[in-house]
Amino acid sequence: MKLLRFGPNGTEKPGLVDAEGKIRDLSGIVSDIDGSTITPEGLERLRAIDPSSLPLVEGDPRLGACVARPGKFICIGLNYADHAAETGAAIPEEPILFMKATSALSGPNDPIVKPRDATKLDWEVELAFVVGTECRYVDEEQAEAAIAGYFVCNDVSERAFQLERGGTWDKGKGCDSFGPIGPWLVTADEVGDTSDLHMWLEVNGKRYQDGSTSTMIFRPAFILSYLSRFMSLQPGDIVTTGTPPGVGLGQTPNVWLHKGDRVALGIAGLGEQRQEVIDA
Amino acid sequence: MKLLRFGPNGTEKPGLVDAEGKIRDLSGIVSDIDGSTITPEGLERLRAIDPSSLPLVEGDPRLGACVARPGKFICIGLNYADHAAETGAAIPEEPILFMKATSALSGPNDPIVKPRDATKLDWEVELAFVVGTECRYVDEEQAEAAIAGYFVCNDVSERAFQLERGGTWDKGKGCDSFGPIGPWLVTADEVGDTSDLHMWLEVNGKRYQDGSTSTMIFRPAFILSYLSRFMSLQPGDIVTTGTPPGVGLGQTPNVWLHKGDRVALGIAGLGEQRQEVIDA
Repeated sequence: MKLLRFGPNGTEKPGLVDAEGKIRDLSGIVSDIDGSTITPEGLERLRAIDPSSLPLVEGDPRLGACVARPGKFICIGLNYADHAAETGAAIPEEPILFMKATSALSGPNDPIVKPRDATKLDWEVELAFVVGTECRYVDEEQAEAAIAGYFVCNDVSERAFQLERGGTWDKGKGCDSFGPIGPWLVTADEVGDTSDLHMWLEVNGKRYQDGSTSTMIFRPAFILSYLSRFMSLQPGDIVTTGTPPGVGLGQTPNVWLHKGDRVALGIAGLGEQRQEVIDA
Repeated sequence: MKLLRFGPNGTEKPGLVDAEGKIRDLSGIVSDIDGSTITPEGLERLRAIDPSSLPLVEGDPRLGACVARPGKFICIGLNYADHAAETGAAIPEEPILFMKATSALSGPNDPIVKPRDATKLDWEVELAFVVGTECRYVDEEQAEAAIAGYFVCNDVSERAFQLERGGTWDKGKGCDSFGPIGPWLVTADEVGDTSDLHMWLEVNGKRYQDGSTSTMIFRPAFILSYLSRFMSLQPGDIVTTGTPPGVGLGQTPNVWLHKGDRVALGIAGLGEQRQEVIDA
């Protein structure tokens, strides 16, 4: 199943993508795509619906973030061996955790808003997942079963805020619009094996990232099991799992995003995002 | 006004503290104490109520976190010059930002749950505030007006997770129960001047922290204005503003919390918290 949220920012409705790629309106069935509806029971209920019985959504509406109101938006850093190398960092011995503000969430094709003082705006195509079952000290098998679905995330980053403004990375990761997710949540059963998904990112038509989840250091189920030793995870919590090589920080000389730049990114089976950079 | 949430974990009701210190039930007026009810308009509505007209809450109920479902739980690090010194860190040139998971929130007198692998469990009495008005690139005056109220926060920390497990501080700050807030939210008008509030923390009756907000480096309105340049803040977002000297990490030798230890803390005018440490 592919689940999404469509409509104006703040008043999105839940929907699903039917076999012909058309959006069907789920708002008569569930209030939203969030922690209350993507539990195993919630997804079972949606699977039982014949999509053709749902209202067809006409036109080409804006898509919102494919999950609403997560309690947490957790990120794993330097989780691709070759990306760690390009940033000059050592390969981590255990997952590096940081957080994006949940207010950073945005729709997959919404603009990236360059903050007023930004000078080093960068991109990161990432495989993200959403939790469907509460997790506390779960093993990898339990963690695998607790993942409700996967989607594309652009872990937009401001490297000067992240690395040169004191303290932790969070300052350069949680700006508004720095977390486009979607276009849709693909349920775990439909994604199947995530061990070799092609992922790519282009800026103004030039391909900068062209990798695969096959070079991830820590895999989603391991990450979720690991996180659950530090904090409980609730249905709706989002985890994004790091980026392959090719970010702007890794270029010689560095390449940063500016007003008017167009970013496109995607992961095999999970769809594509398109963003234009605008000024705050 | 003093606003609080009372009742079993997960089903708390909103309440206020009347002139005699008794809890009055607000559940007939508002659904909860959260971002939707602590806006300027929301607080005005509550101020217009005669507390004696509200049902009196009998007995001594458990208190929950005094704000429900914040979108963000932001922390400022090393914000007291003498605390920075005790941890061996330089005085920061600008606020250090990190985040606690919102799932770390707990009631003011709930147990502190020591995570399974914890070895360096520590305490931090802090002045926290909650945002009542959305903030984006606000100046200090606007920020001051956007603070709905203040409360006590124990920024419980696991120093090995925070400092020795790779990456950012977030791993040692967001464990379940690491964010007791309350006992109540005191509205900004009632708190008045926050520039010299006595704050203290004791473990098993021994006073470790005995400071004042007068030694803060960055003050709440400045912090909120500063944060709003990196991300928007929504009503209900919580910011905790750092701790004075006397944490366990600052003792020679270090002092860590263990099962059965009893922590008490408070800030003048904002009430007190009492926590017992239990094992996960």
